[in-house]
Amino acid sequence: MKKFVSLCLVLASTASIADEGMWQPHQLPNISSKLVDAGLKLNPSSLTDLTGFPMGAIVSLGGCTASFVSDKGLVATNHHCVYGSVQYNSTEDNNLLKNGFLAKSFQEELPATPGSRIYVTEKITPVTDIIQAALTSEMSGSERFNSIDLSSKSLVAECESDEKYRCSVVNFHGGLEYYLFKQLTIRDVRLVHAPASSVGKYGGDIDNWMWPRHTGDYGFYRAYVGKDGQPADYSVDNVPYEPKHHLKVNKSSVDENDYIMVLGYPGRTNRYRTAQEVENQFTWTYPIAKAYREEIINLIHNNSAPGSDVRIKYESTLAGLANYAKNYGSMIESYNKGTTLSRKQALEAELSQWINANKSRQAKYGDALKGLNTLIRQDQQSQARDLILAYMNYSKMLSTANRLYRLSLENKKPNVERKRGYQERDIAGFEQSMKAVNRRFDAQMDETILLAMFKHYVQLPKTQRLASLDKFFSLDKGYDEQKLKTKLAKMYKATELTKQETRLAWMKETSSDFETSNDPFIQLAVETYAERKHIEEAGEELSGNIQAFRPKYMEALIAYFNAKDLPVYADANSTLRVTYGNVKGYSPQDGLVASPFTTLEGIVRKDTGIAPFDAPKKQLALIKDKKYGEYAKKELGSVPVNFLGTLDITGGNSGSPTLNDKAEFVGLVFDGVYESIIGDWDYEPKLNRSIHVDIKYMLWVMEHVDGATNLIEEMDIVE
Amino acid sequence: MKKFVSLCLVLASTASIADEGMWQPHQLPNISSKLVDAGLKLNPSSLTDLTGFPMGAIVSLGGCTASFVSDKGLVATNHHCVYGSVQYNSTEDNNLLKNGFLAKSFQEELPATPGSRIYVTEKITPVTDIIQAALTSEMSGSERFNSIDLSSKSLVAECESDEKYRCSVVNFHGGLEYYLFKQLTIRDVRLVHAPASSVGKYGGDIDNWMWPRHTGDYGFYRAYVGKDGQPADYSVDNVPYEPKHHLKVNKSSVDENDYIMVLGYPGRTNRYRTAQEVENQFTWTYPIAKAYREEIINLIHNNSAPGSDVRIKYESTLAGLANYAKNYGSMIESYNKGTTLSRKQALEAELSQWINANKSRQAKYGDALKGLNTLIRQDQQSQARDLILAYMNYSKMLSTANRLYRLSLENKKPNVERKRGYQERDIAGFEQSMKAVNRRFDAQMDETILLAMFKHYVQLPKTQRLASLDKFFSLDKGYDEQKLKTKLAKMYKATELTKQETRLAWMKETSSDFETSNDPFIQLAVETYAERKHIEEAGEELSGNIQAFRPKYMEALIAYFNAKDLPVYADANSTLRVTYGNVKGYSPQDGLVASPFTTLEGIVRKDTGIAPFDAPKKQLALIKDKKYGEYAKKELGSVPVNFLGTLDITGGNSGSPTLNDKAEFVGLVFDGVYESIIGDWDYEPKLNRSIHVDIKYMLWVMEHVDGATNLIEEMDIVE
Repeated sequence: MKKFVSLCLVLASTASIADEGMWQPHQLPNISSKLVDAGLKLNPSSLTDLTGFPMGAIVSLGGCTASFVSDKGLVATNHHCVYGSVQYNSTEDNNLLKNGFLAKSFQEELPATPGSRIYVTEKITPVTDIIQAALTSEMSGSERFNSIDLSSKSLVAECESDEKYRCSVVNFHGGLEYYLFKQLTIRDVRLVHAPASSVGKYGGDIDNWMWPRHTGDYGFYRAYVGKDGQPADYSVDNVPYEPKHHLKVNKSSVDENDYIMVLGYPGRTNRYRTAQEVENQFTWTYPIAKAYREEIINLIHNNSAPGSDVRIKYESTLAGLANYAKNYGSMIESYNKGTTLSRKQALEAELSQWINANKSRQAKYGDALKGLNTLIRQDQQSQARDLILAYMNYSKMLSTANRLYRLSLENKKPNVERKRGYQERDIAGFEQSMKAVNRRFDAQMDETILLAMFKHYVQLPKTQRLASLDKFFSLDKGYDEQKLKTKLAKMYKATELTKQETRLAWMKETSSDFETSNDPFIQLAVETYAERKHIEEAGEELSGNIQAFRPKYMEALIAYFNAKDLPVYADANSTLRVTYGNVKGYSPQDGLVASPFTTLEGIVRKDTGIAPFDAPKKQLALIKDKKYGEYAKKELGSVPVNFLGTLDITGGNSGSPTLNDKAEFVGLVFDGVYESIIGDWDYEPKLNRSIHVDIKYMLWVMEHVDGATNLIEEMDIVE
Repeated sequence: MKKFVSLCLVLASTASIADEGMWQPHQLPNISSKLVDAGLKLNPSSLTDLTGFPMGAIVSLGGCTASFVSDKGLVATNHHCVYGSVQYNSTEDNNLLKNGFLAKSFQEELPATPGSRIYVTEKITPVTDIIQAALTSEMSGSERFNSIDLSSKSLVAECESDEKYRCSVVNFHGGLEYYLFKQLTIRDVRLVHAPASSVGKYGGDIDNWMWPRHTGDYGFYRAYVGKDGQPADYSVDNVPYEPKHHLKVNKSSVDENDYIMVLGYPGRTNRYRTAQEVENQFTWTYPIAKAYREEIINLIHNNSAPGSDVRIKYESTLAGLANYAKNYGSMIESYNKGTTLSRKQALEAELSQWINANKSRQAKYGDALKGLNTLIRQDQQSQARDLILAYMNYSKMLSTANRLYRLSLENKKPNVERKRGYQERDIAGFEQSMKAVNRRFDAQMDETILLAMFKHYVQLPKTQRLASLDKFFSLDKGYDEQKLKTKLAKMYKATELTKQETRLAWMKETSSDFETSNDPFIQLAVETYAERKHIEEAGEELSGNIQAFRPKYMEALIAYFNAKDLPVYADANSTLRVTYGNVKGYSPQDGLVASPFTTLEGIVRKDTGIAPFDAPKKQLALIKDKKYGEYAKKELGSVPVNFLGTLDITGGNSGSPTLNDKAEFVGLVFDGVYESIIGDWDYEPKLNRSIHVDIKYMLWVMEHVDGATNLIEEMDIVE
C-alpha cells in the first residue's frame, strides 16, 4: 500500500491524512487501496476514464463545476453558479431572484446569461515533452517565457481548429509538467430551475464561510445542442443534449463518517510555496491588499447612498472587494494563530538535509530552493509598485484605455503571437467586457477611487514610480493633491470612454489612431505604454527564470516524498480533480463541537423575516408542521439541510456534485468553514471542512416548497 | 415520590425537569428522593439545617455569595465579587487589578473596600401569621401596604436589637408567605488573594454570558472578628473568624453528567408573572429601557474621550448601562424566538379550567387572575412616565437633591415609621453614597444626560406629566429646547450639591432649611415633592391592592400544581436557595454542540495578547509546555478551565460554591450562557446552562502561576 501526503501534512498528525489532496484522475490508481479502504465501492481505475462513468458526467461552467443528472442534459450546480442567469432573466415585474424560477416544461426554460458555456473535458494529453523540447538551458528568462507561451498557444490553436472545442495548456508543479486540456463546449445553456434566493442564498454574506449553515445552494441548467447533436449557438430548434453518462441521485443521502467524494475543477491553491513566499504573502501582501480593499469599500459606501443608482452599479464590485477583504483577514488571523510558517520552514530544513545527504541529489537539486528564493526576493522588491498599479485598475477608465490601446498593438501581430487575452479566441469576451463597463461604473466614483489609489502610488520611492505616469500628472515636479484632483476632474470631464459605442469603436482602431487621439485616458495609456511594457517584460524575464527553478524545486520535493513512498498531488489550477474523505464534524473552538448535519428546524431558529434570514413563509409553515415528506433522517428526527465533509476543496469546486461510495449524487459542495479559509495555503486536518447541500433538503424543497416534481421525475432517483 | 416542576416547565418536556428550581432549604425534604435519584450522597434533610454542614459554610456578601473553605475563615468567591476590594487597594505603582494580589501571610492581608460585609444566615423564621394578623380585607391598598411595611420594620428592628445581626423580612410568592432572615454580620473583611485580571476577568465583556469560556473568576477574602469571637469593626487586633463549618475542596473536580449543586443567594426571578405582565415587559419595558440605556451610553461616548478623567468617572456607569442593554436585548431576542408567552397563556387557560371545574375553588380563586390583571393594567397606564422619571435619576444632581430633601422629611418621624432607605440603620450607607457621588459624576455630563431624558419626558401626554416639574421649567408654556438648556445650564452653574461637604451638610438640615434654600436643585426637589409623593402614594395604594391579589393567584397556582403532586419553588428574592442538576453541555444552535468542559489550550487559542485576551505570559508558557501538574483530567488530556451545568441560577448566585454529591467544593458558579439570559423569566431545560470555574483550574493557577501554596495548604483538599 502506498501512503500519500502533502507538504503540509508531513509534520502533522497522520490520523486523517486520507482527506487532503486534489488528485488528478490519472493519479487515482496510485492511491486506489486508500480509496477502497476509505469506502469507495467502485473500481478506482474507473475514475481515470474521462469519458466513462462517473467522470463523463462532470462538467465545468468556467469558474464553477456542475454535473449531468439526467439523460436529457439536465445539469445540477450551485445556486450561486446560476445566479447571473437568474438575474439576467429577472424583470421589475417578475423578480426571479426573489421568487425563484421553475420551468415546468422544456419550452419554459430560459436562455442563460450571454456567454454561458458548459465545458466537457474529453481529453487530457501530457505535453511536457513538447514544451520542454523548445527550451534550452542557455535561454534568458524572457526567451524561456516566450518559448513556453508560444508552444502553448500553438498547441491550443491546433486543438481548437475544431470549433466545438476549447483548449488550454496548463502547467502543474510550477512547470514540471504540462497538459493539454480539450473540452467540448456547449454554447446553448438554459436556466431550468432555481429556488428563491431566500432558500438558495439563505444566510447570505453573514453566513458565508460559516457553520452552522442552512443554505439551499442549488440550481439547474440544461445543455442544448443542434439537431445533429453537436454544440450550436442558441436556437429554438436546438434539442436537449444527451450525455453519455449522468449521475444517479441517491435520496438516502449519507450518514456521519460515510465515504464521500467531490469531482470538480478547483481553482487555485498554493500549498507548495516556499517559506519565504508564505511569510511575505501573510505579513505583507494580504495585509496591504486588505487595506486597499477596505479603503475602496469605504469610498463607495461614503460616496453613494444605499439603494441609489450608483450604489447598485457598485454592489457587485463591493461584494467582490468585501469577499476577499474578509477572506484575507481570516487567512491572516489563521496564519497568526497557527503554525503554517514554522512547519513550512521545518520541511525545507528536512528537504535540504535529504538533498545534502547524497552527492548526486546535491548536484541535481542543491541550488533549487536557494535559486528560487533569490528570484522571489527579486520579485518582492517591486511588489509595492505592482500591487498599487493593480489596484489602480479599479478605475475602469484607466484599465479600459490601457486594454484598448494594447489591443490595437497586438492586432498588428499574427494571431498566435498575440498576448493571451488579445487573440482572436478572446475577442468575443473582450467585446463583452467593453459592453459591461457601464453597468458597473460611475464616472465620479471611478475618479474618487483612482485619486485614492494615487495617494498610495505617490508614496512609492521615486525609483519605483513610472516616470511617464509622473510626467503625465506633473508628479515629477512634486505631489500636490489639489493639482492632481483638478487634472483628474478635467480628464473625466473630457473622456469619451464612458460611452459604450466609443469603447466598441476603439476596438477597431489602429495604434496610430490612439497615438493621435485627444482623449485624455487614451493619451495616458499611450504615454505610459512603453514603461508599462518594460515592466511587463521584466516580469516575464523573472517569470521565465522562475520557470527554470520552480520545477526543479518541485522535482526535489516530489523525489523526497516519493523516497518516503508518498505520492504528491499538484496545486489546484482549474483542472479536473478528485478529492475524497468523510462526512464529519469538527471542533471550531475549545468547548464547542460542530455536528455534521444541520436540520430544517435550524432555519426556523435563524429566521428573522429579514433578508438574508427570510425563508419563504410556506417553507417555515411546513417545518413548523413537521411536514418532512419522505426526506427525514431518522437519527436527526428531521430533514438534513447541510452537512460537513473533510474534503479538500477550493473556489471552482462550487457546484461540484458530492458523490457517495458508488458515485451517486448525494448533494453539492458549495463552501468551506471559516477555519479552512487558509486551506488554499495549508490543509489542517482538524479544522478543514467542506460544506455541502444535502440531497434530502434539495428534494424536500423541490417537492414540497417549489413543486418541481417534473425535475424529480426526470432524474434517476435511487436509495 | 413527589414530582416537582415550575410554571415554565409544565408544558415542556419532562426529561430534564430535575434542574429547574431555586429551592428554599426547608423544601428539600419534599424533593429528597429526587435529590438522591440525581446523585446526592448526603441526607437531603441535612441541607435544611442552616447552622449545620454544609449550609453553615455558605455566606452572603450582599449581592454575591461565598463560602468558608478553611477553619480560619478563608472565604472563596468570584473574582468579580472581590473586584472592588482589589481596585480599592490598587495604586498607580502597584496595580493589583493588573498584577493580582496574594497575601503570603495573615499579616499581608488587606482591608476590603469600605462597607464590605460577610453575612451568615443563622435563622429563618416564618412570620406570615404576624404580618397577616394586622391585615383586614376592608383595608385600602395604602393601608395594606403600610401595615405590611410597618409590621416588617418592627420585626426587623426587634431582630436587629442585637447589633451583630442584620435582619430582613422577605415576601415569597408575591406575599403569600413572609420570612424573617437573621444574619450574623462580619464587619472586618480582608482581601487574601485574587489572580491577575487577565486570569480572573479573562475574556472580559466580550465573553460575558458566552460559551466557550476560559475565565478564572475566583478570589479569596478572610473574615475577621474581635478576640472575643464576635463581629467587630476593623482592628489590627482582630483575629480570623473560625466558622463552625467549612467546605472541603475536592481536587478531582467532576465529570460530565455528575451531580452538582449550588447553594447561594440568587437575586430576583420573575417566573410566575402573568402572561399580561410578561408580554408588556418584553414588548414595552425592555425595548424602551434598552433604548434609553443606549442613548445614555452614546451620550457618554460622544462627550468624553476614552481615557479622559470624565470617561474614567463614567466607566462603571457605562458598564452597568451596557450590561443591561445587552441583557435586555438578548432577552427580547430569546422571547421573540421562543414560546414563553404562548406557554404562559396556555398555563393560565389550564389553571382557569381547573379553577372553574370546582365550585369551592371557583369561589376561592375565581377572581384572582382577573383581579390581578386589572391592577397590572392600571399600573401599566403610567409606566411610560414612571420609566422616564426613573431614567432621569441618572442625573446625580436631580436624584441627590430629592434624596436629601426626603431625608429631612423622614427624620421628623419616629425611626420605625420612616421610609425604607431613610431609617437609622440606613444612614451609614446613605452617607457612603453621598460621598461616592464625585467619583462617578461630571457636571457637564450630568446636565447632558438630564437634558436628553427631558426630551423624552416632554413627549408624555400632559395628563401624565408632573405639573410642578413643568412649572419649574416653564414647560407648561410649551417646550422650547433652547430655553430648557439655558435653565439647566444656570442650575448646574449655581448648585452647590456638586461638593461633597455640601451634600454631607444637607444630611443634617431640617426640611425648612430646604424650603428656604436657593440651591436650584434643592428648590426643584422641594417644589416637585408633593406631586412625587402623591405618585408614590398612588403606587403604594396600587401595590397594596396587588398584595391582596397576587398571593391569591399564587395560592391558586400552587394548589393547582400540588393537586398534580408537584411542589413549587418561589421566585428568587436574594434569600438562601439550593439548585441542583448535572454537568452537561447543550446545543446553542442547530449544527453546534457546546461540550461541557473547556481546557487550558483554549486560552492559548483565544489569546491575542490584547486585553481581555491577554493571559499572563507565564501561564501561556506553562500551557505550551503542557505543565499540567497534578490537575489534568484524563478524558480531556488537559486541565479543565470552565464547565457547564444545568443549574438554575441568577445574579446573586455569583461566587456560590459548586458542590459535588458529597457537598465538597468543586468550583464556583459565575455566569450563565447567552441562551439562558431569559432564564429570569423562563427556564428552558434545553438551553439553560450555568458556567462554573473548575476547581482544577483554580488550583492549577494558584499553584503553578501565582504560587499561592499557602492557601492550598490551608484548605482541606481531598480527592
